[in-house]
Amino acid sequence: MGKKYVYGVDVGGTTCKIGLFNTSGEVLEKWEIHTRTEDNGVNIIPDVAVAIKDNMTAKGISADEVAGVGLGVPGPVQEDGTVLVAVNLGWGTFNPCKELEENLGVPVKAGNDANVAALGEMWMGAGKGLDNIVLMTLGTGIGGGVIIGGRILTGVTGSAGEIGHMHVDDDEELACNCGGKGCLEQYGSATGIVRIAERVLAATDEGSSLRDLEAVTAKDVWDAVKAGDGVAKQIADKFGYYMGSATASIAAVTNPEAFVIGGGVSKAGEVLFEYIRPYYEKYAFSGCRDTKFILATLGNDAGIYGAAKLVLE
Amino acid sequence: MGKKYVYGVDVGGTTCKIGLFNTSGEVLEKWEIHTRTEDNGVNIIPDVAVAIKDNMTAKGISADEVAGVGLGVPGPVQEDGTVLVAVNLGWGTFNPCKELEENLGVPVKAGNDANVAALGEMWMGAGKGLDNIVLMTLGTGIGGGVIIGGRILTGVTGSAGEIGHMHVDDDEELACNCGGKGCLEQYGSATGIVRIAERVLAATDEGSSLRDLEAVTAKDVWDAVKAGDGVAKQIADKFGYYMGSATASIAAVTNPEAFVIGGGVSKAGEVLFEYIRPYYEKYAFSGCRDTKFILATLGNDAGIYGAAKLVLE
Repeated sequence: MGKKYVYGVDVGGTTCKIGLFNTSGEVLEKWEIHTRTEDNGVNIIPDVAVAIKDNMTAKGISADEVAGVGLGVPGPVQEDGTVLVAVNLGWGTFNPCKELEENLGVPVKAGNDANVAALGEMWMGAGKGLDNIVLMTLGTGIGGGVIIGGRILTGVTGSAGEIGHMHVDDDEELACNCGGKGCLEQYGSATGIVRIAERVLAATDEGSSLRDLEAVTAKDVWDAVKAGDGVAKQIADKFGYYMGSATASIAAVTNPEAFVIGGGVSKAGEVLFEYIRPYYEKYAFSGCRDTKFILATLGNDAGIYGAAKLVLE
Repeated sequence: MGKKYVYGVDVGGTTCKIGLFNTSGEVLEKWEIHTRTEDNGVNIIPDVAVAIKDNMTAKGISADEVAGVGLGVPGPVQEDGTVLVAVNLGWGTFNPCKELEENLGVPVKAGNDANVAALGEMWMGAGKGLDNIVLMTLGTGIGGGVIIGGRILTGVTGSAGEIGHMHVDDDEELACNCGGKGCLEQYGSATGIVRIAERVLAATDEGSSLRDLEAVTAKDVWDAVKAGDGVAKQIADKFGYYMGSATASIAAVTNPEAFVIGGGVSKAGEVLFEYIRPYYEKYAFSGCRDTKFILATLGNDAGIYGAAKLVLE
């Protein structure tokens, strides 16, 4: 019997998002279940199994019709699906694929959540029609995913696409979550933009609408940029410098068709590119200078799309 | 009839190196012919064809026994073998594969020379047994090649692996050959080491054996480092900083098994790594910190090996 369906699961520290897709990439249903991280997360995969089985029963879907289940996991995942560690889930080194395969009787594949989101954007999002893209998800941190020839670049220890931890500033004194200092994530994420804002505001007496706020958010910065605030533009310029120089370095290594920018920060829209592109063009190798910058379109669903696509590769 | 042989050709601006290999990767014969770059290099491919035909006749090799011919070309080469421009050969946009295929009646593939050298090192050189490596050839300039899953990463415009043109210094005032300022090639190549040496020597009064030389070469610097010269060590430290931070950025993107360092500078040996590794480890993402650094072993033959391997992929 032909495979008609595929499930994509974005396993997060608070909820697991589950999507039922047809094999053409249309989402037929999506829902969330609570992630039980207690007891080293032993319940997470069984809970996902029950949720999928219940859905199959409710929809009258047989295992024969299911191409498989894809999992996006917050941690490094090796080619064979072994998760090296997923702190937010309570997992140490563990292969969730085997357990879920035995439970459901369908093929299961896993990938790092940021990598899987990149695959999702390539498949049905901003990168549709392209097969060499780099996704950067600018949220609390920066997630990255490199897609080459339509497939996730995993790397030898599952650390490919850790773009948020490219070293971009030698003078940083604060430590990044990874333990390093001067990582891109410290400037390009929502948290990073707030850090730049605090520094720029402290370094100048220039008036700014941002000074009226009790606590500045990344959204406040971009709103002020759009309103023409000079200090906000200085903040945006520093953001653009870090993002532009990092993307230029990435391009010299992998020469993608496009950089796809997602995450909460990307809600600011195309204005981001007005600040990234001048630095990108200044620092990029001539042969890569025309690389496109585009906004991600799948939002929080990129993970379930990409997880589903993992199975269909 | 089984394919027994493959030819690898490294097309350079002065000579074309040609190697006859068996399909296990042993070189059976190698020789060079002059590269006729006049008239926009129209004679180059016909000359290669004649050289290979003559060799086949002399060896009694029939076209049926030849898996094909691989070409390494000094310029960006697209997936289909189209060379976008090869200034040193006089070529504009041109697909040398078609012409050579028609002439010889065997399959022909082409790749960028630095990328092809990386493939050669992976196949039969320092990267033997690995299939995810990054080669950096430190010569007059810096050539780069990224091998992923045993295959060259070409990039969308053939600019992947242009590692020499990663931007690593914002304060550089001199222009790189590419037109940019602050490219890795300006510090990590033999020419770059000399530039660093001149600057360090000018910035200090400290005594150094390098001051006795009429013109300092990269080899002089490394010889002085090995002899314990303090100024030479400062030069090596700056070299290590640029190389270490660039390789750390590359690792955060592609997470290779090893960096393979070749070219004239690599003749200095393992001492290079004593200066690169501390910065690499300082700046690399934790998951990539154990990446190996190894010396290339094929020297100037990496190109013919890799060109031959192109055909066998």
